[in-house]
Amino acid sequence: MEPFGHSMILDLLVRSLAEDVGRGDLTTDLLVPVAAAGSGAFVARETLVVAGLPLLVRVFDTLSPGATQVQIAIEEGEAVREGTVLARVEGSLRVLLTGERLALNLVQTLSGTASLTRRYVEAVAGTRALIVDTRKTLPGLRLLQKWAVRVGGGRNHRFGLDDGILIKDNHIAAVGSIAAAVARARAGAHHLLKVEVECDRAAQVDEALAAGADAVLLDNMTPKQIARCVSRIAGRAKVEVSGGVTMENVRAFAEAGADLISVGRLTHSAPAVDIGFDLG
Amino acid sequence: MEPFGHSMILDLLVRSLAEDVGRGDLTTDLLVPVAAAGSGAFVARETLVVAGLPLLVRVFDTLSPGATQVQIAIEEGEAVREGTVLARVEGSLRVLLTGERLALNLVQTLSGTASLTRRYVEAVAGTRALIVDTRKTLPGLRLLQKWAVRVGGGRNHRFGLDDGILIKDNHIAAVGSIAAAVARARAGAHHLLKVEVECDRAAQVDEALAAGADAVLLDNMTPKQIARCVSRIAGRAKVEVSGGVTMENVRAFAEAGADLISVGRLTHSAPAVDIGFDLG
Amino acid sequence: MEPFGHSMILDLLVRSLAEDVGRGDLTTDLLVPVAAAGSGAFVARETLVVAGLPLLVRVFDTLSPGATQVQIAIEEGEAVREGTVLARVEGSLRVLLTGERLALNLVQTLSGTASLTRRYVEAVAGTRALIVDTRKTLPGLRLLQKWAVRVGGGRNHRFGLDDGILIKDNHIAAVGSIAAAVARARAGAHHLLKVEVECDRAAQVDEALAAGADAVLLDNMTPKQIARCVSRIAGRAKVEVSGGVTMENVRAFAEAGADLISVGRLTHSAPAVDIGFDLG
Amino acid sequence: MEPFGHSMILDLLVRSLAEDVGRGDLTTDLLVPVAAAGSGAFVARETLVVAGLPLLVRVFDTLSPGATQVQIAIEEGEAVREGTVLARVEGSLRVLLTGERLALNLVQTLSGTASLTRRYVEAVAGTRALIVDTRKTLPGLRLLQKWAVRVGGGRNHRFGLDDGILIKDNHIAAVGSIAAAVARARAGAHHLLKVEVECDRAAQVDEALAAGADAVLLDNMTPKQIARCVSRIAGRAKVEVSGGVTMENVRAFAEAGADLISVGRLTHSAPAVDIGFDLG
Amino acid sequence: MEPFGHSMILDLLVRSLAEDVGRGDLTTDLLVPVAAAGSGAFVARETLVVAGLPLLVRVFDTLSPGATQVQIAIEEGEAVREGTVLARVEGSLRVLLTGERLALNLVQTLSGTASLTRRYVEAVAGTRALIVDTRKTLPGLRLLQKWAVRVGGGRNHRFGLDDGILIKDNHIAAVGSIAAAVARARAGAHHLLKVEVECDRAAQVDEALAAGADAVLLDNMTPKQIARCVSRIAGRAKVEVSGGVTMENVRAFAEAGADLISVGRLTHSAPAVDIGFDLG
Amino acid sequence: MEPFGHSMILDLLVRSLAEDVGRGDLTTDLLVPVAAAGSGAFVARETLVVAGLPLLVRVFDTLSPGATQVQIAIEEGEAVREGTVLARVEGSLRVLLTGERLALNLVQTLSGTASLTRRYVEAVAGTRALIVDTRKTLPGLRLLQKWAVRVGGGRNHRFGLDDGILIKDNHIAAVGSIAAAVARARAGAHHLLKVEVECDRAAQVDEALAAGADAVLLDNMTPKQIARCVSRIAGRAKVEVSGGVTMENVRAFAEAGADLISVGRLTHSAPAVDIGFDLG
Repeated sequence: MEPFGHSMILDLLVRSLAEDVGRGDLTTDLLVPVAAAGSGAFVARETLVVAGLPLLVRVFDTLSPGATQVQIAIEEGEAVREGTVLARVEGSLRVLLTGERLALNLVQTLSGTASLTRRYVEAVAGTRALIVDTRKTLPGLRLLQKWAVRVGGGRNHRFGLDDGILIKDNHIAAVGSIAAAVARARAGAHHLLKVEVECDRAAQVDEALAAGADAVLLDNMTPKQIARCVSRIAGRAKVEVSGGVTMENVRAFAEAGADLISVGRLTHSAPAVDIGFDLG
Repeated sequence: MEPFGHSMILDLLVRSLAEDVGRGDLTTDLLVPVAAAGSGAFVARETLVVAGLPLLVRVFDTLSPGATQVQIAIEEGEAVREGTVLARVEGSLRVLLTGERLALNLVQTLSGTASLTRRYVEAVAGTRALIVDTRKTLPGLRLLQKWAVRVGGGRNHRFGLDDGILIKDNHIAAVGSIAAAVARARAGAHHLLKVEVECDRAAQVDEALAAGADAVLLDNMTPKQIARCVSRIAGRAKVEVSGGVTMENVRAFAEAGADLISVGRLTHSAPAVDIGFDLG
Repeated sequence: MEPFGHSMILDLLVRSLAEDVGRGDLTTDLLVPVAAAGSGAFVARETLVVAGLPLLVRVFDTLSPGATQVQIAIEEGEAVREGTVLARVEGSLRVLLTGERLALNLVQTLSGTASLTRRYVEAVAGTRALIVDTRKTLPGLRLLQKWAVRVGGGRNHRFGLDDGILIKDNHIAAVGSIAAAVARARAGAHHLLKVEVECDRAAQVDEALAAGADAVLLDNMTPKQIARCVSRIAGRAKVEVSGGVTMENVRAFAEAGADLISVGRLTHSAPAVDIGFDLG
Repeated sequence: MEPFGHSMILDLLVRSLAEDVGRGDLTTDLLVPVAAAGSGAFVARETLVVAGLPLLVRVFDTLSPGATQVQIAIEEGEAVREGTVLARVEGSLRVLLTGERLALNLVQTLSGTASLTRRYVEAVAGTRALIVDTRKTLPGLRLLQKWAVRVGGGRNHRFGLDDGILIKDNHIAAVGSIAAAVARARAGAHHLLKVEVECDRAAQVDEALAAGADAVLLDNMTPKQIARCVSRIAGRAKVEVSGGVTMENVRAFAEAGADLISVGRLTHSAPAVDIGFDLG
Repeated sequence: MEPFGHSMILDLLVRSLAEDVGRGDLTTDLLVPVAAAGSGAFVARETLVVAGLPLLVRVFDTLSPGATQVQIAIEEGEAVREGTVLARVEGSLRVLLTGERLALNLVQTLSGTASLTRRYVEAVAGTRALIVDTRKTLPGLRLLQKWAVRVGGGRNHRFGLDDGILIKDNHIAAVGSIAAAVARARAGAHHLLKVEVECDRAAQVDEALAAGADAVLLDNMTPKQIARCVSRIAGRAKVEVSGGVTMENVRAFAEAGADLISVGRLTHSAPAVDIGFDLG
Repeated sequence: MEPFGHSMILDLLVRSLAEDVGRGDLTTDLLVPVAAAGSGAFVARETLVVAGLPLLVRVFDTLSPGATQVQIAIEEGEAVREGTVLARVEGSLRVLLTGERLALNLVQTLSGTASLTRRYVEAVAGTRALIVDTRKTLPGLRLLQKWAVRVGGGRNHRFGLDDGILIKDNHIAAVGSIAAAVARARAGAHHLLKVEVECDRAAQVDEALAAGADAVLLDNMTPKQIARCVSRIAGRAKVEVSGGVTMENVRAFAEAGADLISVGRLTHSAPAVDIGFDLG
């Protein structure tokens, strides 16, 4: 379930190093002897939830196989305070200096997502609601961001357009009715996929239930509207809620009875957390 | 200067579509006829500065060459209000539905960076200070993010480790002195690259100037300290300021006399702006 | 749902042409003038169900964009007799001769799968059973083979290891019980995925049902055993049957009440059908 | 001569794993602990000729370098009975479960080709005829399938369009005569390539011999016609026979005096053999 | 036979543009308006034999599809004088300026090879000897360099290690004798490949002939020694000569009776010819 | 600064081996046992300056990881005489024979560039002039060729179009004046890039200086003209000289006061040096 060895991620690291290093780290190559060794620590500069530390090993090894050793000090998903050492690296000083930036860029953004997710998860503690991610991810980083959501305590939604059926208004319009849409999706999808229907109003929820939907997505409804739908659904389908969810209102959505609350900002707008790399 | 046709970006689009679409958009393929046509508009849902619209053409064309026509309504870098139509697309309904998510993910994050950059630029209006980006970018998106900074009114710093010399404390430590570091860098780098030295305190600034540095980076200094350094430098080197720059304090740094203020959050923490895709 | 424009398939065509053509079609390049034009027909040499014809356009265009025009005469999934013209191609004679082999290799093997699938589908006509494929596909060809199964009248199983949960004996052993395995899978997988459990004997079926499995896979059971399980299940879960299914016994499995019968040989052992390319 | 380390094959394994595993083996990752170890055996479930076992090492190592150890028990090309252990693997249980399917898919289809080849080779035992493959291979698998033919006792034909000259009727038509075609091919090809001419009737054989062809391909002739051609050729050229060769008639072709009998079905229609992977 | 559309060459162009342009042509992008149009001519600055002009179309189209039109004025292999216009290009001035360098680099080095080849070919005019290339090519450019040799009037040797058998001294040592080596190679290679044996002295030539070699490579012999070998061989095998061939001695080798004279410097040391790109 | 582990070079090696080896080294695979071991030495066959030896390790390891051990005997940039052993390799005989050609092709051309560079460097010894390379490199080999120039004692110019501003006549024409061009470039480029202006006559030099250019490129001027410009410039800008530089006239250019003399032939026309690989 750790995505770090996935071929998509190995590719990402190669391309991201090429992007940052280009034809070479001129400053380091000119000033630091090939044989110079060094060590350093990745240190939290604020309170945060850790995600992506295993990437440190892979970033430095992609740059130069075997030139550095990384010791990870904190488990993925652990919440740490400012000053906590997250990992130590030692080995070729050149490799440390050249790889540091990509390493930080990755861990800071992933820990940003994990930290924000944790806050949402805690905000709904005690309710049945699960915090889930969306397809609103940063291009190329979805596998990693979804991991960060998980270690932050959230849950994943479908990964992409091919591992779940989610019928939206345009799909319904193309087919003519929710009933027809669900029937055709059920008939065409393989038997291990469930069918979810996006509903903007209560009447659609009834249609979706009648059509045998496994889940409904209540989009842009108020907690009050959601509560009414939830009581109407009465457990016959999973209830996902989305649209305008913030730290301020997420608990209200949860208390309205949502099974899942999907939050785009976990992946499209989580600010990077502050992590430093202290050499020496 | 537009990065949209760069082979790195064409690759990014192929991989990002693969990431989102996987083996196929099941819902759309099952419910929308191959021949169905549609049209839609990308609409600002809040006030924002536009960046990345030319990617719309390329996202849909990568998915299916020639299946859609895109008309871009707003120029890159323009500030628009909520409700403004940014672009219209028409053609294959399947392609519209399948490509919509990646299109939005890209334009929302890039416009987020452009919008945030614009705010920083406006905050220092009337001073000599330029707002510049950093290497703290999202892996794989640097070329696009740097474009967004430019259209937001900011300026780019070096692109990577190979198109500028920036001597940091660890480099100085490896060589022994600022003088030696600058000399060696100047001797080894090609003649069209300048040399910048990171300085944590005033004494280092003197050394850097004596060594003939083209620019100094004043890291984590207060506006007062910066002002002192600026007057000491007296135009002999460009002055870049970095570290803890926020919307609140950026003007103080500018008024202290900085030539360039580099702001990591433009690219690592800019929240996505809200853009909708309205079919119909 | 047509996979022919998928980036995985475009890649496959580039690599397969490289594999066959190598550094160039020596014979054709030496003997056929660059400007020579020709035309040809792909003709069924036996009764068959057609699959993969849209690839003809892409094979020749990959070899040389725009150098040939392809007219497809038969729809995917149509059953045709010996002598039927499936498609006509005209244009550069060099391109026709160089691309012919890959075109045939693809269409012959895919039509082989479609034809075999059709026979299985017809063998269970009138029962509730659907014929489905497996993950026993030819490496690199899965997307295409699954298409061939569909146009042959069969249905797809999950595409890979990431779009469905199928708990096998080793998974159960690792967790300790079917109940625990189903619970953990349900908790960890996203909410649009169903859970299927492989059962080798009736007692396991009961456990799977009790655990709330959405489907059970009855592996290597006799029709009699299956019928007993089906009546026990009584519609509470989908029933998939696999193991040793042949043209001879498939109907017996269907009549035993299976919802799905998965047949590996559709994709790992379907003989290529005979299709010729007649120039002139 | 072993193709297993060839960059085309390493690529094939990466892509084939991506094809099967997608974003991850959900079931295994959710149910099997990271640290769980296991072992298993690949076992013949029928009599077969082994091909492709060295790929086992590479499949598991591509998935996770060093996580498993493979011991191959049988040499390539050996004929084994049902129940024979072909190889043992031990190591990470996750890796075993996730990689098992691709491993089996490869070895089953390659051993299928080796087994079928062996039967053809044995059918012509005692004659001069060699059984050779064709370019009718499964796209992407040619290098491996040609290996399977060799270990099955067959011989390879040219690998592709660039390592041998084979003049067919359309080439002859384009040039005007067999004499002109052979002359032009000889003049244009490098001096280490031989020239073969496809002949549909005896008169063409005479022309090909007069033109100095190194080999003739007698296509779709009866054994009687072939025998007549062979005696006319009298050793002046290699005689290859193709077209409609089956297990039933292959010996007749061989006894007619063919030097080489090319058999498309070795690679386009060999049924996979049955091999199991028994964990525990 | 033209290699310009080969997928290896398309790849080369993408990578070579990336190599030269990097993240973008800063000077041109900053100074030349997007809409500016221009035209230019590629002009011979010395007498030369033309090779590679069709690459001009592809270089500019790879940079920006459709942005420029190229008119090629001279046929491949034609000898032209200083001042001759080889091709004209018009269209986007940015594209012209950015692509010019790669275009020139390719055409200058390929025309260099064609020009040098032509001189060798003319030096042996009237003899039976053909000038052939070797595997001593510039990494990545072999397909193009072999084309340049052909249009220069030379002939190609085998392309690589897989389309011809060339037995060298180390191969002979590994097997034990020339006879055994030839026999084993003949038995293992497919029937359309010939066998050549490298011979350092006359006795080996006799062994090679006795073993039935199709060709012998006389390496590092004097013209006199070669003449003796040629008369001994008496047409029973092709005679290739290599080693220390220069413009000064090539005719002596030809007159000694060589069938083929292979010249490494055609591809490893041909100086680039001078071609200019005149805008305006 | 060593480019040998750069991902562009690792890619180059994979593709170059594919180019040379194709589907396999037939001769070696047929004649040399898998288990045969051997050793060999790379030996200078003429006086030369060494460049590229670390590639030997990577060529053989790319072909077969760990199958050979390489011992490099000479440091990059060292001048050696005929007969000097540059490196020794031992291990799998197959790997040695198959990889030898690419290894030699690389080291011979890179040492050719290093050797030629050294001669130019020595020709200007005692002057202030540095010998620098150009963008006239062999497509795909720039990173390596620039290394060879460095170890030969030369200096690099900018690597590509993105790490330095060089304003040529067409750029000036597009903007209208040198003053405007320099101003716009300075405003648009990041602050670590310098600006150089190509000047064909003295008046332009004055304009460039007035515009604040960091360097001027005096193209196709005589040493006399250059000397006049140099005295006019009086140290206010770096002076680069290019155009028609040869071993004969390079010292005159240097004595005219050039800071940098750029020489295209270092990379586009350096003849390969002669290096042998002696097995045994």
